[in-house]
Amino acid sequence: MRIALDAMGGDYAPATTVEGAVEALIEHKELSVILVGDESEISSELQKKSCKGLKISVRHASQKVEMDEAPLAALRRKKDSSLRVAIDLVKSGDADAMVSAGNSGVVMATALHVLGKIQGIERPAIAAVMPTLRDRFVLIDAGANVDCKPLHLYQFAIMGEAYARYIFNIDNPKIGLLGIGEEDAKGNELTKETFKLLRSSHINFIGNVEGKDIFAGEADVVVCDGFVGNIALKISEGLAETITKMLKREISEKAGGRIGYLFFKSALKNFKKKTDYSEYGGAPLLGLSKPCIISHGRSTSKAIKNAIKLAANFHSKGVLDVISKEFSEGMSRREEVAVKE
Amino acid sequence: MRIALDAMGGDYAPATTVEGAVEALIEHKELSVILVGDESEISSELQKKSCKGLKISVRHASQKVEMDEAPLAALRRKKDSSLRVAIDLVKSGDADAMVSAGNSGVVMATALHVLGKIQGIERPAIAAVMPTLRDRFVLIDAGANVDCKPLHLYQFAIMGEAYARYIFNIDNPKIGLLGIGEEDAKGNELTKETFKLLRSSHINFIGNVEGKDIFAGEADVVVCDGFVGNIALKISEGLAETITKMLKREISEKAGGRIGYLFFKSALKNFKKKTDYSEYGGAPLLGLSKPCIISHGRSTSKAIKNAIKLAANFHSKGVLDVISKEFSEGMSRREEVAVKE
Repeated sequence: MRIALDAMGGDYAPATTVEGAVEALIEHKELSVILVGDESEISSELQKKSCKGLKISVRHASQKVEMDEAPLAALRRKKDSSLRVAIDLVKSGDADAMVSAGNSGVVMATALHVLGKIQGIERPAIAAVMPTLRDRFVLIDAGANVDCKPLHLYQFAIMGEAYARYIFNIDNPKIGLLGIGEEDAKGNELTKETFKLLRSSHINFIGNVEGKDIFAGEADVVVCDGFVGNIALKISEGLAETITKMLKREISEKAGGRIGYLFFKSALKNFKKKTDYSEYGGAPLLGLSKPCIISHGRSTSKAIKNAIKLAANFHSKGVLDVISKEFSEGMSRREEVAVKE
Repeated sequence: MRIALDAMGGDYAPATTVEGAVEALIEHKELSVILVGDESEISSELQKKSCKGLKISVRHASQKVEMDEAPLAALRRKKDSSLRVAIDLVKSGDADAMVSAGNSGVVMATALHVLGKIQGIERPAIAAVMPTLRDRFVLIDAGANVDCKPLHLYQFAIMGEAYARYIFNIDNPKIGLLGIGEEDAKGNELTKETFKLLRSSHINFIGNVEGKDIFAGEADVVVCDGFVGNIALKISEGLAETITKMLKREISEKAGGRIGYLFFKSALKNFKKKTDYSEYGGAPLLGLSKPCIISHGRSTSKAIKNAIKLAANFHSKGVLDVISKEFSEGMSRREEVAVKE
């Protein structure tokens, strides 16, 4: 299985991308990774590593997408960017999946433009993974689509279900709709209509789930539009950081002094490990014809390694084929839904 | 100043409501509180307290709104509920402000029906207070309006500004629009249009603020629609609870054992005190003609005490008069905005 990696994407690239690729290949000798980007920069990083026996290759690309670049401008002007070339490799069949920690807006626009969608899917969506008290859940859409219709959310639910079922091996994943009350009738126009569609679907829809319950692990998949999802994701990141900072201050300044702080630091380390985004590696852009994983701009080598493993998993388990089959079989259902709108 | 308190509203009423009223009056001898609800139940609670010299009175009401009652049904059938009678007292001028920890949907519907809105306000909104690393911010709308137009959000910003200025004594409050990116052009249709309105207004609009930044205290007022606001509020509650649970487990099971846990417990206590919702007492429903404070269903006597103080503050500082003036003066502006929609 061949993964194309945008070696220039991310705040610490190419050092972390090259390192992550090597780490992934050491753990999974059967994989092969194509590092796409500036050949000399990548080679100089590779020279620091021992790559003997690893299926690693370099594909030169002369351009690089900047973190603040506008998607359409990048799409038009950067036809030889590391990102674009990595996606082109998937398109041509020279790679099976793609990973990038670069500008996520540009990744989305380029992947959509080059690879296209699974037939029947209206809008690809970002499926992020978030930790809970017990385990974790899939949040879909985490930011690809800011204005959605009920049909879009319905499709996000189907795609998120396939993610939870095949990647996390959950038998009959519980799907919740992110809302403001458990009653059926609570929500905004979008979620009230979506609720009806999900209730009459074949998936295990458990109804509305509230923000206060998602971290208790009530649902395996939490469905929302990309505006709400992105806010939910970023509030969680910001709050987790703030709470640990406040507790750290409390414990070192007052409650426990130096000793208390040492205890706390050790607990915090375990906690951070459990809730570390880099464990999940990245978020697939679901609904595209091929697996594309978007990683955090601040990705460490560990995050890149896990993103490569996730991309490989998506390909080997045929998650996209499952989604594709779902949508071709469910076409009449989908059309019925579309007519209602 | 006379505050009408829905003595039967809240999970632990009337014990906590009576206690909270007495505590408020001990601290503020100039206030008077009218306890509205079942006379015998309230009297039996009052007998446990020493109320000498306190301006406290009881107004009987024969009905009580249940926590799961539908707003319109309650409005129609419970004309002698403790909530309705408390609001009627404000309407008739026998009280200056109202506090309830009862069913918030019914509080909103009843207050809107009986008291009406400030002229020029399209939709009243809930202004909740949330803690930050430095201090706190006002989140408006925290759940009153699930589907909003740009004009509504614009008005929420004006009302939130008055709250921060007059209740928290902030000179020139920074107003942020909750969004998914700092750039002007980022957001959904609603926030992009709202952005333009706020940019051309007289308030200190600092642009879009992201979920990851609000807890760092970037803005004094964070504006969003009630669906997003309610999700933001509940995710914060749920996540704070989950994180402290996870850390508690980590520290007691592994990192520090019994001693580490004692240190942590003490830090957690300080942390909880700082982030305790009951410090703020409740959230005003801004845009009504009179001050109405909605408190958490789980309100303790301390939360009730602080809600009474907040209601008194709103009245004495004339916050609603300021908002009213703003809207009569800004009428041409408002109409200009309305025409655009």
